[in-house]
Amino acid sequence: MNTATAPAGPGRGPATHDIRNQIVVAATEHFSHYGYEKTTVSDLAKAIGFSKAYVYKFFESKQAIGEAICSNCLAQLEQEIGQALEGVEQPAERMRKLFKASTEAHQRLLSQDRKLYEIAQSAAAEHWPSVLAYEDRLRALLQHLLLQGRDSGDFERKTPLDEATDAIYLVLRPYLNPLLLPHSLDHNDQAPTLLCSLVLRSLSP
Amino acid sequence: MNTATAPAGPGRGPATHDIRNQIVVAATEHFSHYGYEKTTVSDLAKAIGFSKAYVYKFFESKQAIGEAICSNCLAQLEQEIGQALEGVEQPAERMRKLFKASTEAHQRLLSQDRKLYEIAQSAAAEHWPSVLAYEDRLRALLQHLLLQGRDSGDFERKTPLDEATDAIYLVLRPYLNPLLLPHSLDHNDQAPTLLCSLVLRSLSP
Repeated sequence: MNTATAPAGPGRGPATHDIRNQIVVAATEHFSHYGYEKTTVSDLAKAIGFSKAYVYKFFESKQAIGEAICSNCLAQLEQEIGQALEGVEQPAERMRKLFKASTEAHQRLLSQDRKLYEIAQSAAAEHWPSVLAYEDRLRALLQHLLLQGRDSGDFERKTPLDEATDAIYLVLRPYLNPLLLPHSLDHNDQAPTLLCSLVLRSLSP
Repeated sequence: MNTATAPAGPGRGPATHDIRNQIVVAATEHFSHYGYEKTTVSDLAKAIGFSKAYVYKFFESKQAIGEAICSNCLAQLEQEIGQALEGVEQPAERMRKLFKASTEAHQRLLSQDRKLYEIAQSAAAEHWPSVLAYEDRLRALLQHLLLQGRDSGDFERKTPLDEATDAIYLVLRPYLNPLLLPHSLDHNDQAPTLLCSLVLRSLSP
């Protein structure tokens, strides 16, 4: 770990971990009432009952707190998507589950808490590392699925694998990315299903 | 025409048409400096050198002026797209031209004038009639292209025509719709090309 960017707090022992958690939980609660954008670290510290200096011992910035919330959230989304694919073997069916589970999970996040969603929008707009890592893992999951389908003979093999992966990821993106998602669902909540069928037609050998 | 919603102006003769045009030209100029959202009809009238009441004789609201600007703009986009398809016979090649010309024309609109683009964003968010009509015509153009390709044997015929049209329109939408477009191009300006190739794979018989 690069100590220059590590929290300037008192070590990383279990007590530190607990206090960080406590701050994250309280911050999540606070952001969900007052929004992420307009809240300052001072507001947050006051609401939690800590001094601003004390919060800064554990998080170097508001964004660092936002990143912690964002990471928790993305880990949960990823787990849900993984669970939806468990036990599903047939590649086309796995693709359908991937489209359905990922778009539904991301949409639920949006509808659950609009104020907290500001964090997701900042994260996407500013390309936070946690978001980039999540996108990479989702893309890898998709590529693995394509490889499975190519091996089993269910999917065509002529298109370069990276091109096929990129193109399908682009089809999904408007229903995952927090900057696009709010504008993607006004007309057609059948969109992910329609698009997955188109993608599967494009993959037929 | 429903006279209740018709402009309350003095007839629709050539003089009226000229003054309406004059207001539209001046308003376009003004909006491109000061933005559409924050400008009022008063600001606009002052800038043009007309009284507010006089402007209201020709346009019943700021939105009516915005709609006139928007319609002109959409007519130009449509003409460009039509021109790009002229003389192109082969259905796959027509699809490539449609993707390229439509996404490039919409992107140019965005990069040309960010302030004026606010009108496009309002129009999309509020589903102005001119936008809905434009989308319908674009969708009809796409459907006609699919039919041509089905007739010539270049495209598959199993998928219901409406489903295929809807799905392809959804693939294009993030690169046309003014609410989505600004967030669609950060990573990959090859997106429309990649997506068109995926669409063409999905159409192979």
